[in-house]
Amino acid sequence: MAADKERGVEWRINVADGTSRVLEAESRFGLQRFVSKVGGFFQRAWRIGVNEPKKSIHCVKVGVALSLVSLFYYMRPLYEGVGGNAMWAVMTVVVVFEYTVGATLSKCVNRATGTLLAGALGVGVHWVASQAGERFEPIILQTSVFLLATAATFSRFIPSIKARFDYGAMIFILTFSLISVSGYRVEKLFEMAHHRVSTIAIGTSICIITTIVFFPVWAGTELHNLITNNMDKLSDSLDGCVADYFSSNSQTSDKTLQGYKCALNSKATEESLANFARWEPAHGKFNFGHPWLEYVKVGASLRSCAYCIEALNGSMNSKAKVPDVFKKHFGNFCVRLSNKSSAVLKELAVVMSTMKKPTKIDFMVEEMKSAVQELENALKSLSKQPIQTAEAKAGEVVTLVEVVPLVTVSSLLIEIAARTEKLAGAVNVVAEKAEFEVETAEEAKKGQKSKGGNKIGQEDEEDKAMKTLQKV
Amino acid sequence: MAADKERGVEWRINVADGTSRVLEAESRFGLQRFVSKVGGFFQRAWRIGVNEPKKSIHCVKVGVALSLVSLFYYMRPLYEGVGGNAMWAVMTVVVVFEYTVGATLSKCVNRATGTLLAGALGVGVHWVASQAGERFEPIILQTSVFLLATAATFSRFIPSIKARFDYGAMIFILTFSLISVSGYRVEKLFEMAHHRVSTIAIGTSICIITTIVFFPVWAGTELHNLITNNMDKLSDSLDGCVADYFSSNSQTSDKTLQGYKCALNSKATEESLANFARWEPAHGKFNFGHPWLEYVKVGASLRSCAYCIEALNGSMNSKAKVPDVFKKHFGNFCVRLSNKSSAVLKELAVVMSTMKKPTKIDFMVEEMKSAVQELENALKSLSKQPIQTAEAKAGEVVTLVEVVPLVTVSSLLIEIAARTEKLAGAVNVVAEKAEFEVETAEEAKKGQKSKGGNKIGQEDEEDKAMKTLQKV
Repeated sequence: MAADKERGVEWRINVADGTSRVLEAESRFGLQRFVSKVGGFFQRAWRIGVNEPKKSIHCVKVGVALSLVSLFYYMRPLYEGVGGNAMWAVMTVVVVFEYTVGATLSKCVNRATGTLLAGALGVGVHWVASQAGERFEPIILQTSVFLLATAATFSRFIPSIKARFDYGAMIFILTFSLISVSGYRVEKLFEMAHHRVSTIAIGTSICIITTIVFFPVWAGTELHNLITNNMDKLSDSLDGCVADYFSSNSQTSDKTLQGYKCALNSKATEESLANFARWEPAHGKFNFGHPWLEYVKVGASLRSCAYCIEALNGSMNSKAKVPDVFKKHFGNFCVRLSNKSSAVLKELAVVMSTMKKPTKIDFMVEEMKSAVQELENALKSLSKQPIQTAEAKAGEVVTLVEVVPLVTVSSLLIEIAARTEKLAGAVNVVAEKAEFEVETAEEAKKGQKSKGGNKIGQEDEEDKAMKTLQKV
Repeated sequence: MAADKERGVEWRINVADGTSRVLEAESRFGLQRFVSKVGGFFQRAWRIGVNEPKKSIHCVKVGVALSLVSLFYYMRPLYEGVGGNAMWAVMTVVVVFEYTVGATLSKCVNRATGTLLAGALGVGVHWVASQAGERFEPIILQTSVFLLATAATFSRFIPSIKARFDYGAMIFILTFSLISVSGYRVEKLFEMAHHRVSTIAIGTSICIITTIVFFPVWAGTELHNLITNNMDKLSDSLDGCVADYFSSNSQTSDKTLQGYKCALNSKATEESLANFARWEPAHGKFNFGHPWLEYVKVGASLRSCAYCIEALNGSMNSKAKVPDVFKKHFGNFCVRLSNKSSAVLKELAVVMSTMKKPTKIDFMVEEMKSAVQELENALKSLSKQPIQTAEAKAGEVVTLVEVVPLVTVSSLLIEIAARTEKLAGAVNVVAEKAEFEVETAEEAKKGQKSKGGNKIGQEDEEDKAMKTLQKV
């Protein structure tokens, strides 16, 4: 407030009697708080828009599709062609247009199938009812609505139907109720059915064209990117947290360290994306019938690695101090193993994203296994020699309890390696089912070069790790 | 097939020429497979219906609500009161009726608010457009549809809006497009708005009455039960897997062992239930404004325990064999700690489900901590004495690597204890915010009795654990 006055700023509001008065502190703070809240909201919204341009484009696409469909109202022949029911087309666009192509297609197919099935059944039931005489007609209609609504609602609880036909079941109930009930009044049932079908056809085709032609967002591609990104993140946070633990001057950003949490929480997204991706036609590198359900298994495998990294993080944050001698001795092996595991994760991410048959993976997994062996040997030797050396050096008794955190970290790293191997198996299944291409001679050459590069990179990394450890 | 013939059964189908012929093996098998597939489907559906009667009741409720709303068509004065637009009421019921009361209420409020807002805005824009002259009218209308649809779609990407007002935003787009576009043709805009509002009012009130009066399923209660059940399951699987590991003749069922997986995968469900529960009025033990969002935090805390149990399970399945002497020595402490932790989890579940202020928890947490201390002491002593004793006894060198799995299990158990303590803190927050009652004198007495009973039970358990360990 003082600052405000110094700058000569005053908060004034106009009062009913025409004068203006300076706002009291309390109401000003209320207003300020409100303004800052609204400002914060728009800031967050702006950040979403800037960081994820795909989402902004989607919004524009919805606007375009709605403008297209509303043109129907302005073109008399079209409008009259559907008997003034252009409303249904607008409704279809609003309800059916989703973020990904797969979701939109799935909703279109569901809406069309549900409407057709329910329409046919509704007309049939209506005919039966009309044959039964005026007295029984409403009873038959009401009973059929009750029974079919109950049955269709129940079907929505069955997981296999819920995953793919939930919306269709709802549309089925809707159309059947509308037809079998409204038929009592509206005599021109077939005309209505015809209009409804053609408006839905118009609406769905506008949606499909808009969603596929302008900057399409494919559920398959999203799933593909989600999985490979999660692999990358897992690899980074594994590397980061082991490096941070064993060397005091390595500072990995919190964002990198917490990266594994993305994998922990992406189960629902992965499953729904996989379900939508199954509806999509061939696009980009993916054929129709790409093994999307196998991606879900890769995701599950990835999550089981993430659980272990979570536990690893937990045990690294424990307060128990480990004597530096042991940290140094073990650090080498642990950092080496975590480097190997994260390299496998990184390579698996490359395999998934380039869709080339994995050639280096087997070799890298073997390297990882030998790192596991070395760590196990180090553990073995610890109980015999180093403790005594350390004791002699430090002149004090070193008890097992002091190395407990180290042992835990080591065996969690070993477990992570085992799970990474399983993950490699899951990726292999995808590679086989999706018939990933084999590397051409040229690519292999390039690959070897980059492998050489990698090796140098790895050695560099190991050197770096050694150096940071020596500084401890 | 042979069996079929023996029993004199033949598969015949009627052919077009009036005769019937025995089905060939191949097509019979196709048919059989189809029949068995359909049979399996219905079996699964039947099981859902029998195991979860609430879901079957929900289906009947949908049928009842639809039958109620379709009565409108048969009552002429009502039908004409809404200008033949009874369709909107049916549609509202189909679209808005959800499994839980909270979800239904949320959709009702969203639908009503979205319609009203968009209606007012639509009429306003329409008035402005009509003032602008015939030439600019369609341009203004089209532009407003485009801009508002884009903005509203964007708002659906903002997490805070998506969680609570996603459906409302969709209805806003729908109503605004319908009104601003159809207004070009239909002159009687206000009448249409009036009809739409009254039909929606009819539809939503039928839904709300049906969902609350007949066997209501409260999202709050579901969330409450989900959390307490998950606590119970976690407690059981912790107990089960530790017991199985340390004694060869303890056989916990797979279902119990895998119980923790329910907690791993319930994040999305918990969050959506909490969002719906916030809309619900006071019911059962819960007031309006019950701290449902705190339940989500309890769920997150529970999940962090579950991650550790997952890692524990993983390290218990490792092939490394631990010498029996150590297993026996450590088993006591590990089983004791896991018993204490799972007892805390069980007690927390009791606190949550009875909604009484926790009185025993602090005491039990202290007991758990002392069990942690004992286990740590055991680890400490291991490096000094027992190894040498064991060596002397077995006459062979026992290396650290042989006890690595034990050390890992121990420190994971210690980590689980730490996380359980945090969970107790989260439950405490719920207890304070929801103002859980204090136990009355009588209940406290009862509680003490059961505490005594518990103690006996605990001692029994410990005895049992000791006995099973001695048998190893």
